[in-house]
Amino acid sequence: VNVGIVGLGLIGGSLGMALRAAGLATRVVGFDRSPADLALAQQRGAIDHQASSLADLAAEADLVVLATPVLAMQGILRELAPVLKPSAVVTDLASTKAAVTGWAAEVGVTFVGGHPMAGSEKSGMAAAGLNLLRGAVYIITASPGTPAEAIAQVERLARGVGARPLRMDAVDHDRAVAAVSHVPFLASTALVRTTTHDPAWDVWGEIAATGYRDVTRLASGDPAMYRDICLTNAAAIAPLLRGLARQLDEMADGLEDRPYLEGLFQDARERRDAWLQGHTSFRLP
Amino acid sequence: VNVGIVGLGLIGGSLGMALRAAGLATRVVGFDRSPADLALAQQRGAIDHQASSLADLAAEADLVVLATPVLAMQGILRELAPVLKPSAVVTDLASTKAAVTGWAAEVGVTFVGGHPMAGSEKSGMAAAGLNLLRGAVYIITASPGTPAEAIAQVERLARGVGARPLRMDAVDHDRAVAAVSHVPFLASTALVRTTTHDPAWDVWGEIAATGYRDVTRLASGDPAMYRDICLTNAAAIAPLLRGLARQLDEMADGLEDRPYLEGLFQDARERRDAWLQGHTSFRLP
Repeated sequence: VNVGIVGLGLIGGSLGMALRAAGLATRVVGFDRSPADLALAQQRGAIDHQASSLADLAAEADLVVLATPVLAMQGILRELAPVLKPSAVVTDLASTKAAVTGWAAEVGVTFVGGHPMAGSEKSGMAAAGLNLLRGAVYIITASPGTPAEAIAQVERLARGVGARPLRMDAVDHDRAVAAVSHVPFLASTALVRTTTHDPAWDVWGEIAATGYRDVTRLASGDPAMYRDICLTNAAAIAPLLRGLARQLDEMADGLEDRPYLEGLFQDARERRDAWLQGHTSFRLP
Repeated sequence: VNVGIVGLGLIGGSLGMALRAAGLATRVVGFDRSPADLALAQQRGAIDHQASSLADLAAEADLVVLATPVLAMQGILRELAPVLKPSAVVTDLASTKAAVTGWAAEVGVTFVGGHPMAGSEKSGMAAAGLNLLRGAVYIITASPGTPAEAIAQVERLARGVGARPLRMDAVDHDRAVAAVSHVPFLASTALVRTTTHDPAWDVWGEIAATGYRDVTRLASGDPAMYRDICLTNAAAIAPLLRGLARQLDEMADGLEDRPYLEGLFQDARERRDAWLQGHTSFRLP
């Protein structure tokens, strides 16, 4: 199959590098609105050649992978729909699935949602890597009417780049990633905001160390990507974010309550350690 | 000088290993209420020999380093005061400084506060390491009446283990570490609580990846240490924690506001990256 990748950033670029290295595609054609990123993608081996437009890419691709920030996918799907090969399957790599699934249905393309649970606080083609997706859970969402062969094709892609496909409902997916990815990003960002805007930050910044660095790591993520994530997943994120705020208020009330603090901290440690124990396959950053 | 270390956990053990390796002390004597940890400390080279009691340690030590959870220091200072050498200097390694400084003043020992900004989510002597303190900022707090030579002695200790001494007022210190260490720990813990107690955690835990792992890292820290930190630093932590909760509520209100989200995320990324840029000396975990 010929694979077309739209958007050669961190994830799209890494996918291209991995599937070319694995010999999974006859050819990989890429398109990006930034000519520099597109040229870099070819130079780094993420694509075989550069398409001059979405139509140019669609003329060739049997499998189209959308790897832009999620809101851009609505216009791209509209533009692609009339020019895709009739047998073409479209998939994506975005962090929210309900919105893009709806847009694909509106324009009538054969669509399978995809979301590899891998990333970095770095963004752009320059940060892409051959092994970024290796070992990652790769969530696949499909609608009741999605052809089984289209789903199988995306599962082969996931396995081919070394990831582990996991089928989920799009709405369940969006709530899950709100909890384990979007809210952590927002908490990380909120912490950076409240600390760095304090008049004492000059001193605080001098003594902040590895704990602060790690808890705030996600705040260095791509603003455009996270903006689109929030705009397409607000319904799932908002209640979880407010729940986290209530937990912080409850903690503030309990800061002098010894048994409460002990119970809280022991419970959190045990639960995180149990989770980590089950994920020994994580590569270190 | 003979150095006595009370409490052979992660930080006390690492300090002992580093100062013995650097040849800073004539002898290092250790005491811990856990005979197993004390024996391990000797085996791992953190101390030269084991004291059988605080009095036994005090009889020998010119510089006493308290490295227990902070609340235990009140009783230890009371017990040490009558048995210390008249010339002895006491310092500590705790994460809050105002409370312990007050207790030391109450019992009339010569005291210099110390707080190396280094650590790990792991705890105990088994996790101690020769280089844990290397390169870390080592905050030193003193009262107006503290003898200059006592301060100089603790500064030599800090430099000797490869850390960078930084003088601060105890109250300023407590607010600073509330912001860059205690509140991040509590946010990390709150995130673990709100996610792992959700009925959907079985699925969420499957897809949580490196972002979740890093933002929650601090939640695996020593519950007893953090309990004591909260109990002795509630006044500084509470308003910062409530401020963070307000920021999260504000974000929840703004999840569909594109310019707001862009401004927020760009600002946080720029500020964190600027901070990180100034801290290129961090060792990776």
